[in-house]
Amino acid sequence: MKSLTEYLVFQTQNRREFINITPEVESLVQKSGIREGLCLVNAMHITASVFINDDEGGLHQDFEEWLQQLAPHEPVSKYLHNRTGEDNADGHLKRTIMGREVVVAVTKGRLDLGPWEQVFYGEFDGRRRKRDLVKIIGE
Amino acid sequence: MKSLTEYLVFQTQNRREFINITPEVESLVQKSGIREGLCLVNAMHITASVFINDDEGGLHQDFEEWLQQLAPHEPVSKYLHNRTGEDNADGHLKRTIMGREVVVAVTKGRLDLGPWEQVFYGEFDGRRRKRDLVKIIGE
Amino acid sequence: MKSLTEYLVFQTQNRREFINITPEVESLVQKSGIREGLCLVNAMHITASVFINDDEGGLHQDFEEWLQQLAPHEPVSKYLHNRTGEDNADGHLKRTIMGREVVVAVTKGRLDLGPWEQVFYGEFDGRRRKRDLVKIIGE
Repeated sequence: MKSLTEYLVFQTQNRREFINITPEVESLVQKSGIREGLCLVNAMHITASVFINDDEGGLHQDFEEWLQQLAPHEPVSKYLHNRTGEDNADGHLKRTIMGREVVVAVTKGRLDLGPWEQVFYGEFDGRRRKRDLVKIIGE
Repeated sequence: MKSLTEYLVFQTQNRREFINITPEVESLVQKSGIREGLCLVNAMHITASVFINDDEGGLHQDFEEWLQQLAPHEPVSKYLHNRTGEDNADGHLKRTIMGREVVVAVTKGRLDLGPWEQVFYGEFDGRRRKRDLVKIIGE
Repeated sequence: MKSLTEYLVFQTQNRREFINITPEVESLVQKSGIREGLCLVNAMHITASVFINDDEGGLHQDFEEWLQQLAPHEPVSKYLHNRTGEDNADGHLKRTIMGREVVVAVTKGRLDLGPWEQVFYGEFDGRRRKRDLVKIIGE
């Protein structure tokens, strides 16, 4: 069994952003030399997400509005967590909806994605340095 | 390390359906000859889901109603994504709630599921051909 | 390839509880002797969750309140599933939001978690015996 472990670093300009990381993950699969296996991609921070969906700007705005409805940022005082001095309680909830991680099959040396599947980093409390982990195992 | 990669094909009659795929996945585990490992099952389409829950019809109707409350299909014009000519923005959101994938342990040559755990394909924009991926790795 | 399979048992005092299981999972990684691989932790019951977030009491209360808003326990009669004699339909929905499972990288013989990442068992229909599965594969 082979494995590869790498960390991707992000520092977004905005509190919330979606970043397509498919090319980076695909190139790590190639670097690993693994032909058949599994590729885990996860946020290492608890107000961030890794998810798979469509790379379509309108949809991303729909996600933004929908997440604000389900877990509004304001009033920040409504969340007990924000009494710790943070204002990111909503980010913990939004990331829960979007998910921490994806596991993608590696087949014939490539990410085995459907036609529209793209891997995104989802940031919900940005403007600080954060990391994703990519772990690929197989042969 | 051994691996097996297979694709399940679906074309539902309705826009939204839940289909129990546990027998198909279990038979792929047997086909793989893998005794100890991990089994990834994921939707390859971004308005579909693979999830684990109870095979109980009332619960499935509860899920349907709940998802329609959290991410209503109509009015279709409320979603920016639908300006691309699609009417499936809600399907992208519903699938996000239900999840893209499950990873199930393979133990002693079988899916290591709890007493009520069943694996479902969840369709949220059906009446077109779609695929799930099943990837099993182990020994 | 090596593997380890273990089951953690829970019987909570309350209907809903969050329990930090990171130490138990970490000690299973050490027991496995696996240096590089993947660690799956999943609830084996469909009204329970395994998720990763912050071990902060205020946030846990925020989660509790938020989940009650998204999928209220009462009135129990509003859920068709509860006609089976159960009163736990909301638990199925809450666990869907929180997720069934996590997959964590094992790197250099340890869980490769970010600085605030902790693994939790989330119970949404407690006061009965339930199990989590921990499956570690790698080398």
